[in-house]
Amino acid sequence: MTGAPETPGFLAVDSGGSGLRVVVGTAERGPLARCASGEPVRTGERGIDPGHFMAQLLPLVRALTAETGPVRLSAAVVGAAGLATLGDALRAELPGALAGELGVRTVALAADAVTAYVGALGPRPGAVVAGGTGLIAIGTDLTGWRRADGWGHLLGDCGGGAWIGRAGLEAALRAHDGRAGGSDRLLEDAEEQFGTVTGLPGALYPRPDRPAVLASFAPQVAAACADGDPVAAGILREAARHIAESAAAVCPAGGAARLAVTGGLFRMGEPLLGPLDEELAKRLPGARRVPAAGDPLDGAVRMAAELSTGPLTLPGDAAMLTVTTLSGDGSGD
Amino acid sequence: MTGAPETPGFLAVDSGGSGLRVVVGTAERGPLARCASGEPVRTGERGIDPGHFMAQLLPLVRALTAETGPVRLSAAVVGAAGLATLGDALRAELPGALAGELGVRTVALAADAVTAYVGALGPRPGAVVAGGTGLIAIGTDLTGWRRADGWGHLLGDCGGGAWIGRAGLEAALRAHDGRAGGSDRLLEDAEEQFGTVTGLPGALYPRPDRPAVLASFAPQVAAACADGDPVAAGILREAARHIAESAAAVCPAGGAARLAVTGGLFRMGEPLLGPLDEELAKRLPGARRVPAAGDPLDGAVRMAAELSTGPLTLPGDAAMLTVTTLSGDGSGD
Repeated sequence: MTGAPETPGFLAVDSGGSGLRVVVGTAERGPLARCASGEPVRTGERGIDPGHFMAQLLPLVRALTAETGPVRLSAAVVGAAGLATLGDALRAELPGALAGELGVRTVALAADAVTAYVGALGPRPGAVVAGGTGLIAIGTDLTGWRRADGWGHLLGDCGGGAWIGRAGLEAALRAHDGRAGGSDRLLEDAEEQFGTVTGLPGALYPRPDRPAVLASFAPQVAAACADGDPVAAGILREAARHIAESAAAVCPAGGAARLAVTGGLFRMGEPLLGPLDEELAKRLPGARRVPAAGDPLDGAVRMAAELSTGPLTLPGDAAMLTVTTLSGDGSGD
Repeated sequence: MTGAPETPGFLAVDSGGSGLRVVVGTAERGPLARCASGEPVRTGERGIDPGHFMAQLLPLVRALTAETGPVRLSAAVVGAAGLATLGDALRAELPGALAGELGVRTVALAADAVTAYVGALGPRPGAVVAGGTGLIAIGTDLTGWRRADGWGHLLGDCGGGAWIGRAGLEAALRAHDGRAGGSDRLLEDAEEQFGTVTGLPGALYPRPDRPAVLASFAPQVAAACADGDPVAAGILREAARHIAESAAAVCPAGGAARLAVTGGLFRMGEPLLGPLDEELAKRLPGARRVPAAGDPLDGAVRMAAELSTGPLTLPGDAAMLTVTTLSGDGSGD
């Protein structure tokens, strides 16, 4: 490329269930342009597919740099859902691909929980609970990371959207059966949303997106709780207890730690946040819940801006946060 | 057919997850011969596949009647897993197919919960809990049927094998994370059975038989309970409470009802049966738990013997027990 000297800048990516969100910016001026793809990166036998990731990313970056004018992308931060367990191929291939295609020198791959953390609290010690369909807690004392839960809808994600929705549907079916613990209100809500409940197993089990189907009933549990349904209130109280247990497992010891919650789950508001603050007060009396400053993409932007001018403040972790600096020929150092 | 006059007899079938089990007998002499196929009947878009059922059944029946000598199969009882929700095609086609191929006049299609009931208690009022990977309770006062739970591993089956195994794995992961409610013993057991627990999500979620994988950990929960692990004991106490709730929802009111438990779940023995008897005493103080006399195939045999000489004692139900008597040309009446 010839002409105007390129500004040193960064690329920040959030890869999640609804696709890629991408920002190009510079440390000096911050984010300059952003865009999104509507298609999530494929997961195959090797985990998250690096080829599909790059095929999605490159046209987005070209569109962004056309908008910003020439930017030398010296650093990239990619926050990806599933990185800790499904990220081996991404870790092996993405730094080299980003160097070869875009000239990026330093690449950080972060679990989406890490970018959620940085988005919420910045590079400071504390604990963050990220809740949507699933639920994970992550904390750091700036020497290492701790995580709790995030095991998926059959093994955990206790207190997350699928957990709450599932418990609500169980309560609906208990009412249908005349078993203890049923809620007639949730039975009505379930039939309104899914049709007669005897058809619910046939509608749910063949679906590949069972956790999302379960989570789609969580707002009805919150609404029933707000209207005074005691069974729904009991479900959200138990969810709050599980969330506080996860937060307590990762929160750095001693002092007044900052704690933030982030993600779509907490848009439920008071029916969940009320009992959550009570449960947090019991389990983490020293911690102070603060509002999340931003979302996972904001976290990736913050990390990328930092990485474009020097090393990251936050500690690395083999599964959750790896930084690769490449020499000029694209090989890792 | 010519030669010796045929003995009027019956066909009894139990169709479940491990295939068909088939008995040919007569009301007078009882079961005369039995055999089994190792292949479960396929479930497709129309539910349980009647064509695949007949293709499996016919060679077994021919082998049995070769053994017993000529038997006129006047009545057939088929107990089938999934009949209530996936049995429409079976109800529509099986009576005609059995009449056409085997000359059967009267066909009863029963949910496996009904044959389990009859196998356990006979045609008497009471309640039966059938537990394996899943869990269902069924009761009758001889005027109709009540059922509770049996909704599958995401919506219910509370207290069944998958429920117990899942709770045990959650406790293992809680210990791994340092969350409340964890059991180091169950964490050891889980790693022995499945390898390092960080690989558990990747090992479980892609499997089509997730409920069976979860249930495969239930025996470890029972063993840990027997060895004094308090978390495992808590899981089995909660399972017992759920099972008693389901029993209470279906047990006929008043008097000293009989109640039986049946199925592989209860081979767990004292760690589950101890708390179950305590929970039943609270919720159904009038009921008397009696040993199950037999299994679902025994129930199908008992019903088929009755049906070969007259109507069934037990009440019909559109989803759980339908009887079709065909005229000589194979059309339903």
